[in-house]
Amino acid sequence: MEENSKQYEEAGIPVQDEAEGAEDLEERDPESNSLTRPLLKRNRTLSSSPLAIIGTKVSHIESLDYEYIMGLIYFTAANFLLTTVAAVLCVCFAPTAAGPGIPEIKAYLNGVDTPNMYGATTLIVKIIGSIGAVSAGLDLGKEGPLVHIGSCIASLLGQGGPDNHRIKWRWLRYFNNDRDRRDLITCGASSGVCAAFRSPVGGVLFALEEVATWWRSALLWRTFFSTAVVVVVLRAFIEICNSGQCGLFGRGGLIMFDVSNVSVRYRALDIIPVVLIGILGGLLGSLYNHILHKILRLYNLINQKGRIHKLLLSLGVSIFTSVCLYCLPFLAPCTPCDDSLPDSACPTNGRSGNYKQFNCPKGYYNDLATLLLTTNDDAVRNIFSTNTASEYNPISLLIFFTLYCVLGLITFGIAVPSGLFLPIILIGSAYGRLLGMAMGSYTNIDQGLYAVLGAASLMAGSMRMTVSLCVIFLELTNNLLLLPITMIVLLIAKTVGDSFNLSIYEIILELKGLPFLDANPEPWMRNLTVGELADAKPPVVTLHGIEKVSRVVEVLKNTTHNGFPVVDDGVVPPVGLPIGATELHGLILRTHLVQVLKKKWFLREKRRTEEWEVREKFTSVDLAEREGTIEEVVVTRDEMEMYIDLHPLTNTTPYTVVESMSVAKAMVLFRTVGLRHMLIVPRYQAAGVPPVIGILTRQDLRAYNILSAFPHLERSKSREKGH
Amino acid sequence: MEENSKQYEEAGIPVQDEAEGAEDLEERDPESNSLTRPLLKRNRTLSSSPLAIIGTKVSHIESLDYEYIMGLIYFTAANFLLTTVAAVLCVCFAPTAAGPGIPEIKAYLNGVDTPNMYGATTLIVKIIGSIGAVSAGLDLGKEGPLVHIGSCIASLLGQGGPDNHRIKWRWLRYFNNDRDRRDLITCGASSGVCAAFRSPVGGVLFALEEVATWWRSALLWRTFFSTAVVVVVLRAFIEICNSGQCGLFGRGGLIMFDVSNVSVRYRALDIIPVVLIGILGGLLGSLYNHILHKILRLYNLINQKGRIHKLLLSLGVSIFTSVCLYCLPFLAPCTPCDDSLPDSACPTNGRSGNYKQFNCPKGYYNDLATLLLTTNDDAVRNIFSTNTASEYNPISLLIFFTLYCVLGLITFGIAVPSGLFLPIILIGSAYGRLLGMAMGSYTNIDQGLYAVLGAASLMAGSMRMTVSLCVIFLELTNNLLLLPITMIVLLIAKTVGDSFNLSIYEIILELKGLPFLDANPEPWMRNLTVGELADAKPPVVTLHGIEKVSRVVEVLKNTTHNGFPVVDDGVVPPVGLPIGATELHGLILRTHLVQVLKKKWFLREKRRTEEWEVREKFTSVDLAEREGTIEEVVVTRDEMEMYIDLHPLTNTTPYTVVESMSVAKAMVLFRTVGLRHMLIVPRYQAAGVPPVIGILTRQDLRAYNILSAFPHLERSKSREKGH
Repeated sequence: MEENSKQYEEAGIPVQDEAEGAEDLEERDPESNSLTRPLLKRNRTLSSSPLAIIGTKVSHIESLDYEYIMGLIYFTAANFLLTTVAAVLCVCFAPTAAGPGIPEIKAYLNGVDTPNMYGATTLIVKIIGSIGAVSAGLDLGKEGPLVHIGSCIASLLGQGGPDNHRIKWRWLRYFNNDRDRRDLITCGASSGVCAAFRSPVGGVLFALEEVATWWRSALLWRTFFSTAVVVVVLRAFIEICNSGQCGLFGRGGLIMFDVSNVSVRYRALDIIPVVLIGILGGLLGSLYNHILHKILRLYNLINQKGRIHKLLLSLGVSIFTSVCLYCLPFLAPCTPCDDSLPDSACPTNGRSGNYKQFNCPKGYYNDLATLLLTTNDDAVRNIFSTNTASEYNPISLLIFFTLYCVLGLITFGIAVPSGLFLPIILIGSAYGRLLGMAMGSYTNIDQGLYAVLGAASLMAGSMRMTVSLCVIFLELTNNLLLLPITMIVLLIAKTVGDSFNLSIYEIILELKGLPFLDANPEPWMRNLTVGELADAKPPVVTLHGIEKVSRVVEVLKNTTHNGFPVVDDGVVPPVGLPIGATELHGLILRTHLVQVLKKKWFLREKRRTEEWEVREKFTSVDLAEREGTIEEVVVTRDEMEMYIDLHPLTNTTPYTVVESMSVAKAMVLFRTVGLRHMLIVPRYQAAGVPPVIGILTRQDLRAYNILSAFPHLERSKSREKGH
Repeated sequence: MEENSKQYEEAGIPVQDEAEGAEDLEERDPESNSLTRPLLKRNRTLSSSPLAIIGTKVSHIESLDYEYIMGLIYFTAANFLLTTVAAVLCVCFAPTAAGPGIPEIKAYLNGVDTPNMYGATTLIVKIIGSIGAVSAGLDLGKEGPLVHIGSCIASLLGQGGPDNHRIKWRWLRYFNNDRDRRDLITCGASSGVCAAFRSPVGGVLFALEEVATWWRSALLWRTFFSTAVVVVVLRAFIEICNSGQCGLFGRGGLIMFDVSNVSVRYRALDIIPVVLIGILGGLLGSLYNHILHKILRLYNLINQKGRIHKLLLSLGVSIFTSVCLYCLPFLAPCTPCDDSLPDSACPTNGRSGNYKQFNCPKGYYNDLATLLLTTNDDAVRNIFSTNTASEYNPISLLIFFTLYCVLGLITFGIAVPSGLFLPIILIGSAYGRLLGMAMGSYTNIDQGLYAVLGAASLMAGSMRMTVSLCVIFLELTNNLLLLPITMIVLLIAKTVGDSFNLSIYEIILELKGLPFLDANPEPWMRNLTVGELADAKPPVVTLHGIEKVSRVVEVLKNTTHNGFPVVDDGVVPPVGLPIGATELHGLILRTHLVQVLKKKWFLREKRRTEEWEVREKFTSVDLAEREGTIEEVVVTRDEMEMYIDLHPLTNTTPYTVVESMSVAKAMVLFRTVGLRHMLIVPRYQAAGVPPVIGILTRQDLRAYNILSAFPHLERSKSREKGH
C-alpha cells in the first residue's frame, strides 16, 4: 500500500492509506501542512480526470486506471446486489411494496381499499426492500416507504396481527371497524413522516394535508400523540448511539439538515430572487410531474410484460445509476481546500462530511464527488451547507442537477420501495444553490439557504402541499427566521404548479385507476340529479325483510353489489296509514348475507325472529368478520326453500338522498360523511311508488363513469372550457 | 434633583437621574464600579421596604414616602384613565367588543351568528379598547382581541364595508355567501394569531384546531396565504422600525420570546419533572377553568344590573391591579447584580430588560419589580430568560404567581377587550420556573425553559389545544430541541385537564348560551330516531308550490321558522305513477318569502310562472339580500287574494333524512355538511302519507333541548354514568 500511494503521488494523485488518513485528521502538524501548500497550489487548475494525465508515466497510469476500474466494478456490483435483493423481494413476494405507498394510503383513507396493502408480508418486504434500495445508492428516499411501514404496523396492531395469525382478544374488536382502522392508519402515516424527517409536527400536518380525507378533532391529537412517541423513541436511540457505534444513525441529533448557524438577513430587494425561485419551482415541479407521468405509463407497459421485465428494468436503472455516480466526478476539477478551514475538515475521507477528496491530490477536494459519492442524506446536508460560498463549482452543480433530474425520473417507477421526497429535495437544492450563485453579491442570503428554498419550491411545485412542507422544512433545518421566505416560496410554487397540472400523488392515483373521490365536485355535476343517474344504471336489486334463501343466493351470485336495500311490502303501518304501504327498512351488506348463509341461520316458516333468538345466534364479533364469499357457501336443495329474516342484520339508518338532489351535493355528502352506499328515495309519495329507487356507490359518483353514461355532459363541459 | 438624590443615597436608596442613568450605561468606567462594589455589598441583606429604614433620618423618609406615594398615585391614575377609555367605549358603543371574541368566532364558524359581532363600530372599539386595556397594565393579553380584529376586518372586506356604507361592487357578491364569509373570517382569525405571536404556522393551526368547525383543503392554504402576508408586513415594519423610533415594537424581531441561546440537554431522568409539570398544568388549568366559570357567572349577575355596574367593576379591577403591581415589589428584597454581567445589563432603568432597579440601591435590582413593573410581553420575556439561574427569588416568584392567579381570574370578565393567552402564559411560566428552581441540580434543563414548559402546560390544561400550541410555542421561543418535551407536556396537561372539565372556550360558549353544535353526539342520541324527535315538536308547517299570499303572510307572522318545506299536492306525476301523488318540491327560506312579498311578485291566477318571467324579475343579487322582516311588509286586501309561485325560489335539493335515522347520525350529517335545515321524509310509501314529516334545525339537535323534551333519556344518561 505504501508503495502504491507513492506511485500515485508522483502522478499527482495521491491515494491515502485509510489509517494514515485517520491519523492525519488528529495529529497533523499545521506547519508541515503550510509547507506543502505552495507546492500543491501549483496544481490548482490540474484536471483530475484520468485522461488528463496521459503523457506522464504510462505504467503508473495503467495501474491507476486499473484501480479506478476495479473501484467502479466493486461499487456497481455491490449496488447491483442490493438492488437485486430489493427488487426480487418486491417482484416475487409483495408487488404492493414497490413505490412509496402514499397514494394507496391516501386512497384507503378516502375509502378505496387496495388488496394486500397492509399485510405482514408487505411490511417485511417494504422494510428489507427499502434498506436494500436506499443502500444501493439509487436516487430514491426512505420517506414514502417509512410512511407505508408506519401504516402497515398500525393496521397490523389494530387487527391483532397478520391475517392468518390474528390474536382474537376481545378488546381488539373495538378497533375492528372502518373508522378506527382509518384513524390508526392515519397515525401510522404521520409517525412515518415523523421518523423520516424527525419532524413531529410536520408529520401531523402531512397526514392532515396530504393523506387524510376525513378529519376529526380527536384525530388531531391522536396523530400528535403518535408522533410524540416516535420522537421520544428516536431521541432515546440517538442518546444510546451518541458514542458512535450506530454508524451514521443519529448524526445531527433531532435536526437532520441544520442550517441555523447562519443568520438570515434580507432586504426588500431580496424578494426578487425569492419570487424567482418560487416560479422556477412551480414550473419545474409541474414539468417533473408531466414527464414522470409519461415515464410511469411507459414503465407500466414494460412491467405488464412479466416479472423478468420488471426485474431487468430495476437492475438496468441500478447499473446506470452506479456508473453515473462513479464516473461523473472525474469530470469535475479538483479544488484546493479553503485555507481558513481546519485541516480535519478538508478533505474528508472515510466518513461523511463536505469536501470529498476522491481522485484529487492531498489538500484538494472534488466537489462533485462530495455530492455524488455519499448517502443521499449526506448529499442534502452537503448541498445545504452554509457559509461555504465558494465550495461548489457551477459546472459541478449543473452536472449534479441534470443527473438527478434524469435519475429521479427513471428511478421512481422501478419495482423497489421508493420515496419521492429526497430525489425532489436533491434536484431542488441544486438549482436553488445555482440561483444563489448566479445572484452573487446582489443578495444577502446564504447559498445554503438558497438550496433549502430551492428544495422547498420544487416540493411545493410537484406535491402542492404548503403548511406541512413549511413545518417539515422548519423542523429539518431549524432556521425559524427563514420561515417567512419559505412560506412565500411555497405559495408561489404551488400556485404556479396548480395552473399546469395535478399534484404528483393525484397523477399516480389516476394512473393506478384508484377511484379516489375528489374534494370538489365538477361544475357540470350540478346539472344532473341523482334520479337521472339512477335511471341510467341497471335497476336496483332490493330484498324483502323476510326473504327466501334461494332468492338471496341468486342475488348474491348474479350481482357484485356490496349492499342491498331491504324493503317490506304490505306491512301493517302505524295508525292513520292505509294498509298495503311499503316500508324502507334499511340496507344490508353482502358480507352479512354471506355470514347468514354460512351459519345457516334459516327459518322454516315466513316469520320474524324474536329478539332472544337474535341475541343467541349472532354476536357483534361474528358480524365484524369479513371473510368468505358466496362461492364458498353450500346450501342444500331443502334449505333453498327456507326463509331468512333480514331485519336483525339490516342497518336501519342508511343515509338517503331524494331523487331530485344534484349529483354535486350528493357527492359532497358522500365524501364528507364518508359513505359506501347511499340510497335514493323518491320525491313522490303515492301508492305503488317503490320506497327506494336506486343506490349510489363510490363508482357511480366518479366523474369518469358519469361522463361515459352521459356523453352530452362531456360536450357541455368542453364547451364551458372553450368559453 | 441633584440634591434629592444625595438625600436618598444617604438613606441607602439612591434615585437615579434619568439622564445620568443613560450616560451610565454607555460611559461608566469599569474600575470605578469595582471600587464602589465592596461598599454596596455591605448592604446585601438590606430590605428595601420603606418600613425597614425607619429609624434613620425621619425627614428624609417622609419625603421619600411622599415620592413613592406620588408614584403610586400617578401610576394608578394613568392606568385608571386608560381603563376608563377602554371600558366606556365597550360599555356604551360596542358591548360585543368586550372579552376575547374567540368563542363567538368559534360559534359563528359553527353556524351561530352573534349580532353586531363584525361591525365597523365593534372593530374600532376593539382596537382602541384593546390598546387602552393593555397599556393600563391590566392582566390581559392582546391575542384574543387581535383574533377578533382580524375577523372583523375580514368580514368587512368581504361584504364591501360597514353595513350602512357598503360598496356594491359586482364581484363582491361572490363573497356574499355563507361559505366564503366563513372562510374569510377563518383567515382573519389565523392572521390575528399570527400578528399576536408572530407565528404564521401557529396561526393556521390555531384556526384549524380551535376555531373552525368545517375545514376544506382549500382553506388550509388560504389561511396559510393570509398569515404569510401578515408575516411579510410585520417583517417590513420591523425593518422600518429597526432604528428604534417605534418604541417597543419590533423588539426581538420575528421571535418574541427567544430562548434559543440555551442548548437543551436532557437525560432520561428529566422525564420526571417534565411529567410533573404536565400533570400540574392539567390540574391547575382545569382548576382555573372551574374558578373562572364561577367568577364569570358572578360577573354576569353584576353586569346585568346596568352599565354603571359594568363600568365600576372594570375600574375597581384596574385600581386593584395598579396598587398590587406598584406595592408588592416592596416586599421583595434587593438582590445584588451578578458580577459576571456587563454593567449596562444590571440594573435596567428607563428601558425594557431584566433587573429592574426600582427601589434598590445602585448595583442592586428588585426581582419582583422586574416582573411586575413592565409590560406583560416584557414580563414573559424576563421570566423566560435563560442562563440566569439565580435571578429570581422563590418568594418573589410565589408572590408573582399568586398575584397573577388572582388578577387573571378577576380581570377576564370585565368590560374591556381582553385575551386569555398572556395571563395564562404568565401564571404558567411562574410555577414552571419555581419547579425548575425546586429541581435544583437534579435537572439539566435551564430554568427559563422550565418557565416555557410551565406556560405551555397551563395553556394546554386550560385551552386543551395540542398541535397549535406546540407550534405557537416553537415559533415564540425558537428552540426546536425543546419540541419533544413540549409535546409530552402538552399531551399530559390536555389529558389531565380533559378528565375534569371542558376547555375554557367551551365553558364560555355554554355560559353565553350559544347553541354550539358539538363534534361528537352523545351516546344516548343513538337510541332516539329523528321521527320521534319530530313527533315531539309542533307539526311541520308546509307551503304549497303555488300558495295564496294571505297564507304566506299568515305563516310568516305566526311562526319564527326560517325555512319551510314546499310540497305539491295532486301533481301529474311521471308515467307509471297514480294521479294524486304528492311531491316534495324543496325548501324555501323565510328571507326569500319576505323578498317576494316586498317586491310584490304576485300572480292573479293560480298558475306556474314561465322561465322568462323569473329571469326578468329576480336576480341573484336580489336573493342574496337578507334585509327586511315580515313586519315591514305591507300587503293590501286585494293582494291577499292573489297567488305566489314558490317554485322558482325553492331550493329543490335540500338534505333529507329518513324518519328512522338516529339523532346521532343526523347530527353528524348536520354538522359535517354544515346545514341549517334538514327535512325528515317518511319511511313508508303509500297514498296519503305526507312527503315531509318534519324539519330539523340546529336548536332541535342540541342535547339540552332534546333532553327537556325526552326526560327519560336524561335518566338513562345518568344511569349510564352511575354504572
